[in-house]
Amino acid sequence: MEIDLSRPILARNEALADGNRVRLAGTGTFALDVLASPGAGKTTTILATIAALRERYRIAVIEGDIASRVDADKVKAHGIPAVQINTGGACHLEAEMISRALDALPLADLDLVIIENVGNLVCPAEFDLGQGARIVILSVPEGDDKPLKYPAIFAMAEAVLLNKVDAAGFFDFDEEAFTESVRRLNGSAPIFRMSAKTGAGVAEWAEWLAARIEASKTA
Amino acid sequence: MEIDLSRPILARNEALADGNRVRLAGTGTFALDVLASPGAGKTTTILATIAALRERYRIAVIEGDIASRVDADKVKAHGIPAVQINTGGACHLEAEMISRALDALPLADLDLVIIENVGNLVCPAEFDLGQGARIVILSVPEGDDKPLKYPAIFAMAEAVLLNKVDAAGFFDFDEEAFTESVRRLNGSAPIFRMSAKTGAGVAEWAEWLAARIEASKTA
Repeated sequence: MEIDLSRPILARNEALADGNRVRLAGTGTFALDVLASPGAGKTTTILATIAALRERYRIAVIEGDIASRVDADKVKAHGIPAVQINTGGACHLEAEMISRALDALPLADLDLVIIENVGNLVCPAEFDLGQGARIVILSVPEGDDKPLKYPAIFAMAEAVLLNKVDAAGFFDFDEEAFTESVRRLNGSAPIFRMSAKTGAGVAEWAEWLAARIEASKTA
Repeated sequence: MEIDLSRPILARNEALADGNRVRLAGTGTFALDVLASPGAGKTTTILATIAALRERYRIAVIEGDIASRVDADKVKAHGIPAVQINTGGACHLEAEMISRALDALPLADLDLVIIENVGNLVCPAEFDLGQGARIVILSVPEGDDKPLKYPAIFAMAEAVLLNKVDAAGFFDFDEEAFTESVRRLNGSAPIFRMSAKTGAGVAEWAEWLAARIEASKTA
């Protein structure tokens, strides 16, 4: 006999995600869920995004990792509030973890909470956190075939960030094939070419995020 | 109330893994489980390993992916038998999937079966497949802090391959910090510096694997 527990677990998560959504709407705080493989440059992209938007918005970060507090420390070093969640083995964040992290943040004083999910192109796709938008970052060294292999996350992303384009000369990355694969899965998400390290393309992505934050305020 | 189904699921997987182990021992076939993030270079490393060892051993590959058959096609293009497993969403391979893949291979005529697990540094760690050895590949662009964030896989790996070292000049990768992090988790696994693309370091890693295959024959 096999018991499928995924349905009740996901239903419970969805209810908690709705709770987070209501709570964030109440304080006018936009939550961004950032998904990517380990090493795609999530933390560096988040820091570059903060640098681009910190004059306009009050920002905090929730860091999700199996273990360690490396990333929260990096964010705090830039004077930005950060909460570290250690999942203790789980391969994704869940709405309940986010609910507890929100307890630890001064939500009424925040316009934007950036959630760095666990480095994983599979599991986080199934767990709604109550976010305002979800994005996926792919880095050039990972290869252009990743949308074919991890379709769910590319299909649901509201924006796709192609990071480490400054390293493109070093790797065989077929950008046309990549764009076509994304387009087959996802007709609407913009694809931003960028390098969080050099800053190239960060402004365009940050403007898209700012527009989403503004749209949520008038919704 | 919460029900922990992980125990019976893992117990069932362990029993099936033992079945695979007995079956592989019966035909004198060594199985290697290859773990890594998406884009770390698993397929390229497997192809380089095959090139180094195909004169000595009869080799086949089992490819695990959420979706697509990109990798199996790449392997077959080199004249090596390959079975593609599509997990249909699952973030790891399980022993039962391997059992079915072994049905599709001429085991009695094989010395080595290389299993490319789903690209994921978290979930595959918990699922024994009946392999003779497990290795993890980390690529330089992913960053030196990954053992801190994904400790389970680095703790259990029998060898650690540091891939894409030819790109080291392009990324801030602290090899000393990486080696120390691995050592804190794992006192025994050798760390092989390599580039599957250029071929640098492949011979040393392949010799280690050959020694493991030989040791299994006389065990």
